Formats: sequence, C-alpha cells, structure tokens
Amino acid sequence: MTESTDYAARHVEFTAPEPTPEEQAELDSMYARMDELHMKPLWNQIGGLMPNAPEPQAVAHRWDWSELITLARRASDLVPVGRGGERRAIGLANPGLGGPTYIAPTLWAAIQYLAPGENAPAHRHSQNAFRFVLEGEGVWTVVNGDAVPMRRGDLLLTPGWNFHGHHNIATEPMAWLDGLDIPFAHQMDSGFFEYGSERLTDESTPDHSRSERLWAHPGLRPVAFPGQASASPLGRYAWEHTDAALRDQLALEDAGFPGVVGPGHAAIRYTNPTTGGDVMSTIRAEFHRLRPGAVTTPVHEVGNRVFQVFEGSATIRIGDEVFGLNHGDVVNVPSWRPWSLEAGPEGVDLFCFSDHPIFEKLDLARTYTPEGI
Amino acid sequence: MTESTDYAARHVEFTAPEPTPEEQAELDSMYARMDELHMKPLWNQIGGLMPNAPEPQAVAHRWDWSELITLARRASDLVPVGRGGERRAIGLANPGLGGPTYIAPTLWAAIQYLAPGENAPAHRHSQNAFRFVLEGEGVWTVVNGDAVPMRRGDLLLTPGWNFHGHHNIATEPMAWLDGLDIPFAHQMDSGFFEYGSERLTDESTPDHSRSERLWAHPGLRPVAFPGQASASPLGRYAWEHTDAALRDQLALEDAGFPGVVGPGHAAIRYTNPTTGGDVMSTIRAEFHRLRPGAVTTPVHEVGNRVFQVFEGSATIRIGDEVFGLNHGDVVNVPSWRPWSLEAGPEGVDLFCFSDHPIFEKLDLARTYTPEGI
Amino acid sequence: MTESTDYAARHVEFTAPEPTPEEQAELDSMYARMDELHMKPLWNQIGGLMPNAPEPQAVAHRWDWSELITLARRASDLVPVGRGGERRAIGLANPGLGGPTYIAPTLWAAIQYLAPGENAPAHRHSQNAFRFVLEGEGVWTVVNGDAVPMRRGDLLLTPGWNFHGHHNIATEPMAWLDGLDIPFAHQMDSGFFEYGSERLTDESTPDHSRSERLWAHPGLRPVAFPGQASASPLGRYAWEHTDAALRDQLALEDAGFPGVVGPGHAAIRYTNPTTGGDVMSTIRAEFHRLRPGAVTTPVHEVGNRVFQVFEGSATIRIGDEVFGLNHGDVVNVPSWRPWSLEAGPEGVDLFCFSDHPIFEKLDLARTYTPEGI
Amino acid sequence: MTESTDYAARHVEFTAPEPTPEEQAELDSMYARMDELHMKPLWNQIGGLMPNAPEPQAVAHRWDWSELITLARRASDLVPVGRGGERRAIGLANPGLGGPTYIAPTLWAAIQYLAPGENAPAHRHSQNAFRFVLEGEGVWTVVNGDAVPMRRGDLLLTPGWNFHGHHNIATEPMAWLDGLDIPFAHQMDSGFFEYGSERLTDESTPDHSRSERLWAHPGLRPVAFPGQASASPLGRYAWEHTDAALRDQLALEDAGFPGVVGPGHAAIRYTNPTTGGDVMSTIRAEFHRLRPGAVTTPVHEVGNRVFQVFEGSATIRIGDEVFGLNHGDVVNVPSWRPWSLEAGPEGVDLFCFSDHPIFEKLDLARTYTPEGI
Repeated sequence: MTESTDYAARHVEFTAPEPTPEEQAELDSMYARMDELHMKPLWNQIGGLMPNAPEPQAVAHRWDWSELITLARRASDLVPVGRGGERRAIGLANPGLGGPTYIAPTLWAAIQYLAPGENAPAHRHSQNAFRFVLEGEGVWTVVNGDAVPMRRGDLLLTPGWNFHGHHNIATEPMAWLDGLDIPFAHQMDSGFFEYGSERLTDESTPDHSRSERLWAHPGLRPVAFPGQASASPLGRYAWEHTDAALRDQLALEDAGFPGVVGPGHAAIRYTNPTTGGDVMSTIRAEFHRLRPGAVTTPVHEVGNRVFQVFEGSATIRIGDEVFGLNHGDVVNVPSWRPWSLEAGPEGVDLFCFSDHPIFEKLDLARTYTPEGI
Repeated sequence: MTESTDYAARHVEFTAPEPTPEEQAELDSMYARMDELHMKPLWNQIGGLMPNAPEPQAVAHRWDWSELITLARRASDLVPVGRGGERRAIGLANPGLGGPTYIAPTLWAAIQYLAPGENAPAHRHSQNAFRFVLEGEGVWTVVNGDAVPMRRGDLLLTPGWNFHGHHNIATEPMAWLDGLDIPFAHQMDSGFFEYGSERLTDESTPDHSRSERLWAHPGLRPVAFPGQASASPLGRYAWEHTDAALRDQLALEDAGFPGVVGPGHAAIRYTNPTTGGDVMSTIRAEFHRLRPGAVTTPVHEVGNRVFQVFEGSATIRIGDEVFGLNHGDVVNVPSWRPWSLEAGPEGVDLFCFSDHPIFEKLDLARTYTPEGI
Repeated sequence: MTESTDYAARHVEFTAPEPTPEEQAELDSMYARMDELHMKPLWNQIGGLMPNAPEPQAVAHRWDWSELITLARRASDLVPVGRGGERRAIGLANPGLGGPTYIAPTLWAAIQYLAPGENAPAHRHSQNAFRFVLEGEGVWTVVNGDAVPMRRGDLLLTPGWNFHGHHNIATEPMAWLDGLDIPFAHQMDSGFFEYGSERLTDESTPDHSRSERLWAHPGLRPVAFPGQASASPLGRYAWEHTDAALRDQLALEDAGFPGVVGPGHAAIRYTNPTTGGDVMSTIRAEFHRLRPGAVTTPVHEVGNRVFQVFEGSATIRIGDEVFGLNHGDVVNVPSWRPWSLEAGPEGVDLFCFSDHPIFEKLDLARTYTPEGI
Repeated sequence: MTESTDYAARHVEFTAPEPTPEEQAELDSMYARMDELHMKPLWNQIGGLMPNAPEPQAVAHRWDWSELITLARRASDLVPVGRGGERRAIGLANPGLGGPTYIAPTLWAAIQYLAPGENAPAHRHSQNAFRFVLEGEGVWTVVNGDAVPMRRGDLLLTPGWNFHGHHNIATEPMAWLDGLDIPFAHQMDSGFFEYGSERLTDESTPDHSRSERLWAHPGLRPVAFPGQASASPLGRYAWEHTDAALRDQLALEDAGFPGVVGPGHAAIRYTNPTTGGDVMSTIRAEFHRLRPGAVTTPVHEVGNRVFQVFEGSATIRIGDEVFGLNHGDVVNVPSWRPWSLEAGPEGVDLFCFSDHPIFEKLDLARTYTPEGI
C-alpha cells in the first residue's frame, strides 16, 4: 500500500477534568489494585503503544569495517572455535535496543571469522541464516552434507533446520557477514536448536555445490524435484552471476530500455527458484549497484534494512542523519525512517538484507514517498 | 510440522581452556572495546539467544472475571471515555513480560467497559482487533459507517485500518473482551494510527450489520464483490451460528460421524469467507465446547493462545501448573508450553484466540504431542 | 482483463501471386503429399483456426420447460432406471455442435426424472456435477454415504470422484437440472468412471445432510478439517439461504448501500467455504434476481453460461437474437456472444452456471463491455 | 493423485427388458421428438461419453524429420511468406482427429521454415506459443520489440498476446518446431488474434535478448519487476544452460547423489522465474536426456505429450505400439496411453512439451504406474 497521508503527530492530550484530591486518591488506589492484579489501563499508555506512525527504539548506526575486522582478528587470537560457543561471530548491537545483540528488532548481523584449519562444528536451528562474503576465500560451508564454496561476492543460504558447519582449508583467515532472524525468533518464542556432528561430514572442496548443479541454471529446474519449497534449495548465489545481472541492467539503461529501479541504480533480488519469491520466509536479500553520483529517492518503509558496502563508497541519509560508507561498512535503517543513498565518485556496490517478507506476508507492508521529491 | 524429537536441554558448556590472568586481561580489554563499538560476541550468549526449544519470558496466568469486572466498574466511576484516552479498556499484563501491557509477546487482551449513553470516539489503526461479548447487549460498534450490534456470544471484527467507534444505547453498562496485535505491531515497528470523527457517523441500531447482510449466508458470496480480501469482510459472527455449529458437531459425534477434534471436544474456527482462512492476518479466533469431563490431549505449539470461559467451568494444565477456570476468566498459554483442558461437571464453552497465523505464514509453525499420551 | 479494443474482423486475404498452371500442379502435388504424411499447411487455414475473436460453433438456444418435463414424464413411462443406463436424464444438445449432447463445448445440462420408489444406482466419475432443483421434493442424493435432501431451490454438489446415487421416497415423481463438465472431460480425454454399490448405502432421510451440519454455518469451519479442499465440502446450498441473501442485497440497494451487481440486479455466487472460490474446479454456479423491468448491461465474456428460470419471466438478448424465458426454461450463451437480461413485469429469479473458472485459472478469461452502453 | 485402481473395462450393458413392438414404436416416437427438440437421452450414450478411463480419439503417431524438412523446403519454393498466411508452417495432423490440424486435442505442432532474407510479419494472439530449434541459426524472433536470437537447442517463448515476427538474416534457410495451444483455444472458443506491424520493429541481431539480460541470471531477478507474471518473462532458454543442467544431473548420479528422475534419465523443466512454475499457463516444456540403453518406467498420464528427438536415437513404446525415433522425428503420446522410452546405443536427447498444466490447475491430473513394473 502506497500511502500519501501526512503522518503528522497527533498526540491529542487526554484531558479528563482535573481530579480533586479525593478523586486522585481513588484513582491511585484503583491503579494500585490493577498493578496487583496484573492489569493496566489503556488510556494512560495508548500514545506510546499506538503512535501515529512507527517510532522505533532502534537507531540508525554505522559499523566501520576496519574496526570490525580488527576485533575479529583479535578474537581469533584469544578465543577458540568449538562446541558450546559454536561460532566466532561478533554481533552488531543496535545502540537503541539496549541489552540484546540485535541490529534490528527482527534481525541479527555479525562478522564471523575462521582461521586456517579451523572448523566450526555442525548444528541446525529453526532460525534462517545466510552468509555474504565481502572478501577472501578458502572456507567451505557444509549444508546437510553439501560442501558449498565461499568466495568473494557470494551469498550462501542456510535456511531454518538445515545442519551446517564451516571449515577453512586455506592458508589465510577468512571473515564474512552472517545474517539471521535470531531476534525475531527470540521475541516470538519460535526458535529451536540442535547440535550436529562434531566432525565434518564432507571434507571435499568442489568448485560448485550440489545445490548449484541442480538449481543454478537460469529458468531451469530438475524434473525430479517438483513443487514449491518454503526456502530456496539453491545454497550459493555466485558472484559472477550477480555481477553480470547488474552490468546487464546498466547496459539496458544505457540503451534506453527498462531494467533499473531508478536512474543509475541497478538492483537484483536473490530468489527461491521454486517460487520466484524471497530466498527465506523472513529475510529478503538484494544487491544494489549505483553509478558514480547516482542518488535514490527517499522512501519510508515498514521494516528494517541492513546494507554492507561491497565496493566503492557512498553516503546514506537516514532521517536527519548522514553516514559515510566505505568498503565493508555496515549500516542499518530502522522502520519508517526515510532513507536515500548517494554513490561516491567511483560508484558503489552494496549488499542489502531486510525483514520485508514478514510484513508483506502479514499484510502489514507500507511504503511512503514524500511528495515533491 | 509434527515433531517427535525429544526436546531435552543441550547446554553443552563452552569450555575454552581456563585463561591465564594475562589472557583474561586481554579478553576483558577486547570485550570492553566491543562494547564501545556496539558489538557483542555470540559465543557467550548463544545459549540464551538460541535455546533448544522456546523458553518464553511470558508465564501462564489466569485473570479472574470477578476482579476484572469489579475494576472495570470502578474505572467507569472515575475515568471518562474520550479522545486521547480513546477507550476505557483495562489491559491484562503478563507477569513475565515486565513493563508493557502484553498478555503475550504478540497479543493484547483487555476488558472494555461502556456505561449507558457513552460513546467511544472513532479511530483507526493498522493493528488488527476483535471484540468478544461475554455477556450483555446494547452497544453498537460502528465500523466504517456500518453499525454492528454486540450481543452475548458474538465475535466482532475491526481489522486493521478500519475506522471504528462504540456507543451504548442501553440502560445498562456493557463490558467485553478486546483482542489486538498491539504488542506485535509495537515490537515490529509496524503500527499506524489515525483519529476519526468525534461524533457517531451512524446512530442506527439495526438487528444485523450490513456486512452480515452481504456475507453471513453460508457458502454464498455477493457477485458484486469478487476476489480475496486480506481480512474478513464479515463484521459480526453472531452467537446463534456458533452455538448451532458446535451442537451439530456433537450430534455428529453421537451418531458416529467425524466432526469433532477429539472425544467430546467440538471446535469451530472463525474464517474469512473470501479465503476460508483466518479472519485477520495475525490473529486466529476459535470457539471450543467440551462435554462434561472431556479432556484434551496435551500439545506443545509454537505461538500463544488466550482462552476466555464463556459458560461452565474447566481446569487447564499448562506445563506443571493447573488453573481453575470459571465464567469470564481469562488465561494465556505461552509458546511451546504443553497444555490440556479438562471440562468441569457441566461442560465448558471457551472462546480462544491466538497468533498462530503469523507462524504458519512464515513457515515457523510447529506442534509436538509427547509420545505415550 | 477488460478490453476496450474493437474486435472488428480482419480476414486480410492471403494474396500470393496467382500460380501458373505448372505451379498449381506442383502445389497440388505438395498438398497431396502432405495429406499422405498427416501434415497440413497453416497458411490456408489460419483464419478459421485463429479468428480475431471467438467464433463459436455453438449457437444460443432456448429449451422450453413444458417440453422438457413432458418428455421426461414420457421417458419415465417407457424407460426404467438402472445399472448401465445409470440415470433417466435427457441431455440438451446444442444445435450448433452436431452429434454429441453438449449444451456447450465444455458443459452438459440435462433434466433428470425419478418416479416414486425409484433408485438411481451409485457410481462415481471424475466429471464434476451438480443438481439444481426447480420444483418438487422427496428425493435424497446419497454422496459418499451422506444423505442429502433435495428441495425446491436447492443446489446440490457431487464433485468429481465422489460416489453418488439418488432415491425417491415420495409419492410424486421429481425432476431437476443436472449440470456437468462431461464435454470438457470428453474432449480433453480426462474422464474416469466407476460403478458403486447397487443398493443404497444410506436410506435415512434427514432434514440436513452431514455436510451441511459441518459446513453450512456462515463464516465458521470445523477445526477438525483444516486446509483447502479443491472442491466444496458442502453438499447442499439450501434455498432459504440463497433467497435471504438476495433479499438482503436488494434491501441494501433500497437503503442506498452497495451489494447488488447493477441497478435492480442482485446475485450470489455459490462458493467453496475452504477457499472462498468456486464450488468446483471447472464449474461456477450463481443465482440472479432481477427486479421487475431491470435490465443488465450487455457484455462479451470468454466462456459459456447456462441459465434456468426459477421464478418469473424475462427476455434475454444474445447477439442479435432475443428469447423469452419462463418458469423452467433453459438457455445457453455461447462464448463471446454479448448478452443482456431484461426482467418481466413480476421480476425474475434465475439459476446460472458457467465454465468461467477454467478460463480464469488458465489466464484466458476476458470480458468486454462495448462502449457507450 | 497416483492411482492403483485397475482400470478394467466396465461396460455393463444397460439391459432394459426387450420392448414389445408397441413399446418400441413408442420409444422411437419419443426419441424422434427429442431429436426435434435438440435433446438426447443419456442412457444410450453414457458408455461412450463417460468411459472407465480416457479413450482418446487421437492416436500415437510419428512424423519423420526427413519428410518434414523435405516438404518444408518444397513449400519454400512454392509458397511465399506474408500477411494473411502469416507463417510458412506445416502442421502435424493427428490421424485419429479427422479434419483439423491437431497433433492432440489441445496442442498444435508444426515445422516452420524461413528462407534467407524472409520476414514473417508481426501478429499477436491469445494462444500461447513456443519455438524449439532443432538445428541451424540466423533467425531472430522479435517479441514485443525485443530481438531474440534462435540457435540450435534454444527454446523461445511467445506467450499469449505478445506481438511477434521472425526474420532470417543468414544465408541459409532455417527450420524449427512451433508448439501452440491452438486446438485448445479453438475448441474452447477462447482465442483472439490481431495483426501487428508489417515491417520489423527491431532489425538488430544481438547475442542475447533483452529478456535474457533481465531474467537469465540463475536465482536472481530485477528488483524493478516484482510480483508474479502469468507467463515467463524470459524469452529464450539458451541451449548452453539446458545442456549444462543435464550434464550436471548425470554427474551427480555418477557420484551417487539425487538429481535424475530415474536411472540414466536426466530431465529439466523450463520455468517461469517469477513463480517457479510452468513457462505458460497451458503448456509445459521439458528436455530429457537418456544415457545409452536407459529405459523409463511405463506410465499412464492424463494429458498429451509430444517429443522431438534432438540428438541420438530411441524407441518409444506407447500402448502396444513401438516407434523408432531418430534426429528430428516427432511423436505424440495420447492421454492415458502408457509410454516408455528406451535410448539407443549413443543415448538420446529429447525435447518434450505437454498440456499437463491444464489438468494440474483444474485438479484433473492423474498418473498411474502399473504394478509389478
């Protein structure tokens, strides 16, 4: 639903007549009794509970890649990887969300780091997960026994309840971005977790995963696997395809044909080839490429986005704040905060993930582009 | 997905070698630096964030109708109804969820009370809402200009973004149960709110709403309104139909035919006649009738249920706790806590609502019936 | 898709240069060789195979009820009902469709007649079927062991592959309209057929079928039967509900509210309560009521309609033809022929069925309302 | 639905008592009267109209490529391509279906032939169409202004109501297989047709169509085009991808992993990337590769298949008939006739299309694998 309403604040004060001291005493006594009985009046809290438009506690924040990678290396020196801790992953904790490590009320983002020869043991959980590879190579993620290579620019999926582990066979450490719906599962009390085998179930290091051999042929699917799967059966979206798709969109724009989402702005969405929909039920993944200097239209959206710069530089305006973004930097956009990107002089490539499928499936999605823009 | 897994606790301790004092100092310094940069290590928190099975903060709790109605009457003496406070509604606050008035992480339940001649002003919000009428009559809820009678046993819908107000034309006050997805919208930053007219847009008091005249004919729909609506267009599910459907199920059971969900246990689900699915995208509503002494099989379910006793009495076992339930009492079942009902000597009628559609639409639903039961 | 294109004829002649006698001989020889090899050139037949707009072989035709019922009675005197012949049904054969008894290329319509004490033996077939009761009562249709009463104005379903038989326990004969997708199944080579028991599986004569006790409560469904069924589980749509729904629409029109499909024109669609969609995958069923003198807008539609007058009288204009319609008369509208109804002085009630779901499911539906009307 | 029923013939004769001469005269008079009134009795025709299992009029038939290509060349000498005739296409006429050029009751198959420099003028029709390229190159099909190359092994789509023309820029003639749902549209009275421009709208000869640049990146879709399209937006499925997908399936089989549909039998289905479903609403397209000597399990299926051999040789058993198949040969399988393929000594590659989506969407699909096979 695109709305043109002006979401101006309402906050009409609830103006009951000023109570007399006796009345106030009665009221106090009533409220105290409610407290004892685990009840609360709506009339005193409705403005906070039901604002005119979303007023997220989460704030926009940028995490610098140089800091992230430095701390990840330091952790590698100090903390082993193994059962119980499970992963050497450092989560990005939204400053507005207090205690838990949530980059957004629904989403988790972390840098995971694996040194040469290390092995992150297998487990599975109902939480949906992906990995996006900013740089490096040499790690294979084994998903239900299928060894999936991780290389620069690749997106890997480990949808809910698939066993997965990682092992680094290279001589260099490797770091990547983990994205999950841990906060959503935690707040919704929907998460399950189970240990898998301690040891690798497959030590092979094939160039392509089996899932790619079955599912990474454009517009084609194996007749042996009909029907719709709730999560994508394709485990790896290799960078070469993403890059080619973006180049093609910009070439079409140059030739005067449709394809880009806006001037100088190419974007692809990773999809589930059995449905054409999002890769997982709770997480959308996209990749955006802006030409040098390209600017996107500000937009309000219900839901949260997280960007990571893959190449180049940009600035992002989120409400009244502006953040510079360079290689590897991560930034989040809270719900309903208007945002726009402006590419730096060499253009910018950004990976993006969001929780938008949740809202679309529940008929709660809404976007708003202010007039005159 | 029905699971037969034994959800025994795992909690393998993460047993890194005991650090030396120097190592500990390094670790402390690293964790401090992470804090400064809004980062947190996964390895120290994964057990809490990703338990083997849901470990809800919400607890099971019963609210006594006699207390609720007493406080509602007292509020009626002390607090007017009007713009700003909007509704004289007393919310049920789950004792495990701390501050906000959430009966569950996703659901809001409240007793609303309207004295003779009172008028709750119109507003609309993206939050989905319903009213269930335990007793009394004389209030009409006006939904987008359609006057809907409220009578004992009725379920009324005000799906997201429909203007609605209430007015009491009777000589007696009236109280009912309000259910909404306020907590879900609040935590997900997806809520919108807007004031409507101060004055009633329709003062008529018809026996049936216009929505019923269009949509409450079994298996029939108006040709003028084809297609699927995301929420039910039927504004009132009158008690006479609910009661008849339950009687019919029990009569079929008596005659040896299928229909009930278990021995002595009839149940209907309120549906959207344009889809056959749930009445609203985030809330399921059902009505259950148990014969005297009937017992239901314990079941674990992802998601939250709330019951209100309409007639008769029962006990409900939730995990290790047992609650007695009488006319009007409200009780909630937290996610994954096994629950079963046992009807009292005169049987029991219960209204029930839940957040199950959210989990089903996101492929996160799971139920588990322990073996041997 | 509503089209405003003018579907004027094209029929550009394919004007190859006039062949010389030698060329003609060569052409003749080539066409003869094609014939031998079971091939045919497109260029000589494309206009007939692919006209600008549908040019149905079926014609519009009206069958008089008085003739139908007279012949049915006569058949009752001369022909017994039993295994092999299966049903005393007299099919309406479209004059444009030559040999087979098709009222339309997809649809079958027949008058079935059962004398007191007669029993039409059980069978099942993949063809979808319904019965509409113009008048009389006293027959029960047993569908998979569920005895369903047949009374004036009722619609009964026997969706594909359900065993069904009929028996008349009254002292009067009874006749009704049978509708099936026999022609579609026959032309598509998709039909299966199987005999059932010779004798009645249920001789009871309940006031309501078991399917109604489970499914004929408005907006309510049994929790014991979740999910979507491809055909409606409701076996009988009783006249009292159809009549009430139509009355309500006209009352809403009188009060200035939406509900009717056009001025003085109320209409309901029979639906599958598990989906809100059509009752069966290939057949749509509706009931239309026009006030005295009401007229409908002419419309072209892909697909075929069949009407039977239930009460009152009307005229129907189909292309350039006009047919008078009285109680019990049946008329068909071929694909893309524009049609409109005009009610007689006492108004008219019409049952209607069509093959429209086939076209909608295959994205082949199209309607066109000529401009200026 | 997989059925294990034995579809043995029933054909119980309808044994009414032998009529007396007087009765016979009455019957004859009644049947004559029915004829006059365009009515027919069901009891005399039900066996033919509703057989136990489909008894198609269409027969299995093989068309030899050498004959087809010879006649196509001859037609090229004798018949020009142009407006009115539209295409130099020679349709394959099923010997069992009498007059019209139908390879099956629903499907059309033809060889189209275009000489160097020729131009088949643009038109559009609601009938869905594809081209499969057995050999050669040099033709571009322009679909709604997008120039799509045609090369050996490619599948091209022109879904209903897209303008399309062809032009040959090479120095050699080119022939290919056209597949459409003309018979279905004709019998169902659902077809529309419109001329397009006489002259090419795009004379460019790009290596890839614009549709491929947007949609032929595996698992990726342009963000600018969200939502589901009823037909695939991808205009060309290039041979290199089909070939690679089949090789990958056989390599997985060699390595002991799932992927093939049966031993030595790889197969892909061409899909609509916006849904994961079939490329068009009425037509399924697949490509099958059998290793030397591989044999498929006989299967009955509702619906029609057409195969064309791309490479290698095979025999196909259809019911009791066996056909040898070599390069370019076309063979059809009528509904419910059991069929199995056996690859020749060098294996076989086959293109296949069918009408199966029609039956699946209408809940009429059924397959049956005889026991003991």
